Amino acid sequence: MPAPTILTEEVIAILGHIRSRHPLVHCLTNQVVKNFTANVLLSLGAAPAMVEHPDEAAQFAAMADALLVNIGTLDEPQMAAMLRAIPSANQARKPWVLDPVAVGPLTIRTQFARELVALRPTLIRGNASEIIALIGQNARGRGVDSGDDAETAIAAAQTLATMTGGAVLVTGPIDYATNGTETVACANGHPLMTRVTGVGCAQGAVAAACCAVTDNPLAAAVAAATLMGVAGDLAARVSLRPGSFSEALLDSLDQLDADILRRETKLS
Amino acid sequence: MPAPTILTEEVIAILGHIRSRHPLVHCLTNQVVKNFTANVLLSLGAAPAMVEHPDEAAQFAAMADALLVNIGTLDEPQMAAMLRAIPSANQARKPWVLDPVAVGPLTIRTQFARELVALRPTLIRGNASEIIALIGQNARGRGVDSGDDAETAIAAAQTLATMTGGAVLVTGPIDYATNGTETVACANGHPLMTRVTGVGCAQGAVAAACCAVTDNPLAAAVAAATLMGVAGDLAARVSLRPGSFSEALLDSLDQLDADILRRETKLS
Amino acid sequence: MPAPTILTEEVIAILGHIRSRHPLVHCLTNQVVKNFTANVLLSLGAAPAMVEHPDEAAQFAAMADALLVNIGTLDEPQMAAMLRAIPSANQARKPWVLDPVAVGPLTIRTQFARELVALRPTLIRGNASEIIALIGQNARGRGVDSGDDAETAIAAAQTLATMTGGAVLVTGPIDYATNGTETVACANGHPLMTRVTGVGCAQGAVAAACCAVTDNPLAAAVAAATLMGVAGDLAARVSLRPGSFSEALLDSLDQLDADILRRETKLS
Repeated sequence: MPAPTILTEEVIAILGHIRSRHPLVHCLTNQVVKNFTANVLLSLGAAPAMVEHPDEAAQFAAMADALLVNIGTLDEPQMAAMLRAIPSANQARKPWVLDPVAVGPLTIRTQFARELVALRPTLIRGNASEIIALIGQNARGRGVDSGDDAETAIAAAQTLATMTGGAVLVTGPIDYATNGTETVACANGHPLMTRVTGVGCAQGAVAAACCAVTDNPLAAAVAAATLMGVAGDLAARVSLRPGSFSEALLDSLDQLDADILRRETKLS
Repeated sequence: MPAPTILTEEVIAILGHIRSRHPLVHCLTNQVVKNFTANVLLSLGAAPAMVEHPDEAAQFAAMADALLVNIGTLDEPQMAAMLRAIPSANQARKPWVLDPVAVGPLTIRTQFARELVALRPTLIRGNASEIIALIGQNARGRGVDSGDDAETAIAAAQTLATMTGGAVLVTGPIDYATNGTETVACANGHPLMTRVTGVGCAQGAVAAACCAVTDNPLAAAVAAATLMGVAGDLAARVSLRPGSFSEALLDSLDQLDADILRRETKLS
Repeated sequence: MPAPTILTEEVIAILGHIRSRHPLVHCLTNQVVKNFTANVLLSLGAAPAMVEHPDEAAQFAAMADALLVNIGTLDEPQMAAMLRAIPSANQARKPWVLDPVAVGPLTIRTQFARELVALRPTLIRGNASEIIALIGQNARGRGVDSGDDAETAIAAAQTLATMTGGAVLVTGPIDYATNGTETVACANGHPLMTRVTGVGCAQGAVAAACCAVTDNPLAAAVAAATLMGVAGDLAARVSLRPGSFSEALLDSLDQLDADILRRETKLS
């Protein structure tokens, strides 16, 4: 496992690349969080774009720097768009992130997400219940919330990462990032992040932005956990009410810099 | 008609149940307000989920604690999802709320909403024009705004409630909740609530959360009117501009407690 | 070219009409910005409505005071709705605005937007790359961002305006409004407006609201540029971070008045 200090410097480098290159992130994501996801990417320094028509999604996935596939409000047209965009990204050697929202209790998305795993996402981000369900075990998710602790999903995450050759990020009070052999814990973040819709989904988009600027999926997963987590920590010092916290979270993403990250990251 | 003091205590009890049980509210709602609706539910203490695929919507309506059906941006796929989800909720004895947005001037949704009334929603929430149009009378609505006073819709609301066996909430400067025999007025709320998109639609989701924790639809309607109205009153003391008011409204929903409700409710 | 002072008074008159008449703006717009667009219109004093079902979109376009057609997340159902709504608006002599988001690099929308130009939009709003691509020249757009300077698109904008008989607004650090013969520059606005998703798209909706209250498309284009630009200038004095800037922008739209506009407009 790499030393936390080295990891923090890698997160700082990734943030620097996002700020200088403004990676274009193609987001095929759910209807609830499109606006917030775009604002999170813009606040961090990346460039969002949502292109939904299946033909255009295929065309655009090859042009963008990374692709996000979030199945939160999956419907047939979006499934078609995803099945066109992912092979296009793969063929153009662009990284893509799978966020298997609410996989487990719901049949169609569970089967669909398992099919997507076979297309080898660069990074998978989910809560413990979703990660456990994704490899076919029984999980206790309820809607978008996890019924399982992140710790219980570490083995499933490692299995998944080995299957895909990429990284898996299991989110919870402590986030765990793994590439199957190395596993890193990130203790940043604040409970209020679960009181604002789309924070987790937006983290998937941040993960895609990170994948666009590094060839190391594990580093991208650690960066996504850390950047969102530290921004959440900063925001909770501004407000402990969800409306103003949400705004402070966007401001904090904009405010992140090397000094803040060196002071705040809780990696191990 | 129950005494206002008893009603206030019932609203407080409903809020307490929402905070302790976090009812999962399945929202089939319009594209404009999905994010805000989810944040309103989270700020209050409930758990939102938007599941749109018709097969999954049917499956999820039986799992969730309540269902919201808001027809603001109705299209054919969403109509199919609603027609799958409502019978599923009915069969699982889960409450559901109908928000007949812009019924009256628009033909397809007007006919569709009248069909939904026959499926016996636990609660209907609409402005005066929508409620009047829903029982087939001529109303004066224009887009999402009411051209009629809430008072003129009370008789129509009572008729509707008798038809469904549930409650009807007519919203306006004063909101009226009725179960057909009893009618309660709620004078909380602030004009700025009409300057932020989705406040009314989110109230429908709050009504669904309330229905999930009480067997009394009238009490749920009174609670939805009161909780949103008092939060609006508090927010208007923080800001009288729409952007910051919107954020303050979410913060105020989080801040609501028994003392505030006892001090602020204007029920009669 | 009209004198800037006269133009400022025209913008003030347009704002006054929006505040007194609350024009109902039918927005067929992209999924990312529906909520923010509605809030921008409400903050300014207009009334938003999103009606997506093709049959209802046709019916509603004739009832509303103006129509916005924004192709940011175009899909087949929305294309159908647009092709029903636009002729309906034209037949009812209601103005409509075209926002050709990301035209150029993406094939389907580029061809579709060019077809829409033949239906003679009252006003077209786009960045330089989009305007250049719309008349069939090679542009350098990347996703929703322009790769070209607004200045390079002025000739294309004048050509387009002559083709449609309406106005064209080219946005950038300086916005240019033209009706083909007269061209006005607006230097209001702040770079932070590009760090909040949907500011440009919402400007298209504001342009539609302006078209609803004046018969002069050029004046509407100048007003849309000025009202959003001045609100951005005011918001940047409240906050230079994107989350709080976004909220301040809505508050500033609400705050705009004749004195502020006389002091702040930068027209030439």
